[in-house]
Amino acid sequence: MPDDALLTALLEGRTAAVARAVSIVENGRPGFEELLTAIHGRVGRARRIGITGPPGAGKSTLTEQLVYAWRQAGLTVAVVAVDPTSPFTGGALLGDRIRMERVALDPGVYIRSMATRGSLGGLAIASREVCDVLDAAGFDRILIETVGVGQSELDVARMADTTVLVLVPESGDGIQALKSGVMEAADCFVVNKADRPGAEKVRREVELALDLRTGKALRNIPAHHGALRSGPRDRPVAGDHEETGWRPEVVLTSAAKGEGIAEVQALVDKHWDWMERTGTLAARRRERLTLRTREVVERAVRRWLWEDTAAEATIAHRLDEVVEGGASPYDVAADIVAQLREGVRA
Amino acid sequence: MPDDALLTALLEGRTAAVARAVSIVENGRPGFEELLTAIHGRVGRARRIGITGPPGAGKSTLTEQLVYAWRQAGLTVAVVAVDPTSPFTGGALLGDRIRMERVALDPGVYIRSMATRGSLGGLAIASREVCDVLDAAGFDRILIETVGVGQSELDVARMADTTVLVLVPESGDGIQALKSGVMEAADCFVVNKADRPGAEKVRREVELALDLRTGKALRNIPAHHGALRSGPRDRPVAGDHEETGWRPEVVLTSAAKGEGIAEVQALVDKHWDWMERTGTLAARRRERLTLRTREVVERAVRRWLWEDTAAEATIAHRLDEVVEGGASPYDVAADIVAQLREGVRA
Repeated sequence: MPDDALLTALLEGRTAAVARAVSIVENGRPGFEELLTAIHGRVGRARRIGITGPPGAGKSTLTEQLVYAWRQAGLTVAVVAVDPTSPFTGGALLGDRIRMERVALDPGVYIRSMATRGSLGGLAIASREVCDVLDAAGFDRILIETVGVGQSELDVARMADTTVLVLVPESGDGIQALKSGVMEAADCFVVNKADRPGAEKVRREVELALDLRTGKALRNIPAHHGALRSGPRDRPVAGDHEETGWRPEVVLTSAAKGEGIAEVQALVDKHWDWMERTGTLAARRRERLTLRTREVVERAVRRWLWEDTAAEATIAHRLDEVVEGGASPYDVAADIVAQLREGVRA
Repeated sequence: MPDDALLTALLEGRTAAVARAVSIVENGRPGFEELLTAIHGRVGRARRIGITGPPGAGKSTLTEQLVYAWRQAGLTVAVVAVDPTSPFTGGALLGDRIRMERVALDPGVYIRSMATRGSLGGLAIASREVCDVLDAAGFDRILIETVGVGQSELDVARMADTTVLVLVPESGDGIQALKSGVMEAADCFVVNKADRPGAEKVRREVELALDLRTGKALRNIPAHHGALRSGPRDRPVAGDHEETGWRPEVVLTSAAKGEGIAEVQALVDKHWDWMERTGTLAARRRERLTLRTREVVERAVRRWLWEDTAAEATIAHRLDEVVEGGASPYDVAADIVAQLREGVRA
């Protein structure tokens, strides 16, 4: 059973309780699963908005502006900054946090940076669980921001209701993003630093790509056939815009000057309204819960494997054989799976 | 049983067989575990050298120079370039490959780029398995190069016999690397682009950090006490230099001009000789086989979980309950672990 006082205070949104609950969940400390189970029924009120894009696109600045704007509208906002930090660039994102001065001291704002610990996989699931805690604590908006490396951009799409892809004029990102499949996962596009040359060009590139996706540019090919889609292996949760009628829009911003922020807010709200109206929100959340359950199961099974079965002892017992070449790691793995199949008590 | 003809040709080092075996293993195609089991006894001849460091440090250029130099010495060389590609910078490393023109057409050189697929974890294990294939195929040296993001630098230390950390003058990398624990995993240091200002400063920073590590700078604290070490949670395989007498050295290079390459080769060889002489090589390889067996077991158990148990059916069966809030993903996970504990046939 989780600490009742903590649970009550968390559900009331008390700052100290939020911080403590987030720490417990982030670090997988004893009782974290019980805590998440206890809040499970209270999760689902917050709107989760993912902010993704390449390094240097101004994601942090845009995030700060959005936080400020939502605060002006009377909403509470949490920011989860996910940083699969390079050992060589460690703390870059945490550095960005310091710049969020204007909102950092506001009690209606909660900011948490999460950096790579054991593995990227571990970070992704822990981030999603932290979002649940913040959701149960009553935050109206949860902004999930990632630094642009590796798998994390696609992961963000799997944890957000609405994914905003931030691009910049100079980097030819339109094409790159299209190639990678990230574009498939984006619900809204922002071309930031739009006062620089090339912003309109990137917008046109994105629009063209969106037209191709929805079949406008190639009317002979039925859009629902999906032949034009070449998404990542794991189909993004966000997919299937073309079937259900959401056509992502592109907004130009200059976040550092505060320009275009209201338009981004409006677009995010419009996407939310569309999701609610069409049942997409419910479908997306159901799919997200399926994925979440699968990853929670995998983690629990991994822990069981190493803590409660004979696997570790079997490896220790057979290591000499493996080192000497008489057995391979695959032989040992097959034996362990056979043991598990028979039941640990058998 | 693996394809006997393939196996024979692979062990003879025939290029087409190497390429086919690498593909089978990289993509986890049917029979890949049998293939790896069949070659297990033939693995261990190659020297594996990891090249890691921040983006822009010139790792690819250094790699090409080392390949060329080893080829001049009559050795065969394989390069495995591990690229946990950002969707936004996709193909950067593959682009680098094209620049390796001088060695790319040499039949004594094999180059393979491996990019992120399903997950970073999957990439790491597949890279290690590809190295085994190349080892069994008879390559004398295997260079493992990563782009500098996330967890991969530390992973490289877990797959190499000798890890070379490449730094550059301008970025103040010495300090950053020290903080992150990557330095703990490095056996050799290269300050590349040493014709630029600041190279000597970085060298001094690294030397100072090494002195601190080996206790020279703080003689009152016993080096073996380990109080000065603040490594990552997973202790690098490379650790414990101070107990066994390896004191990493720093070499200045200008890889683009071919300067300092012979010194890097000599240092890598010196490290190898030291490892052989002190028994460190055997100990490190034993530890690596333990880690490898653990990850092979985890992967096999994950596959068993989703393909051969009732886990997926249980999730499907209980999903409505989870969506409606009556059960949490953690409840479902606990049930599935309980089922596994009883044995799948029970």
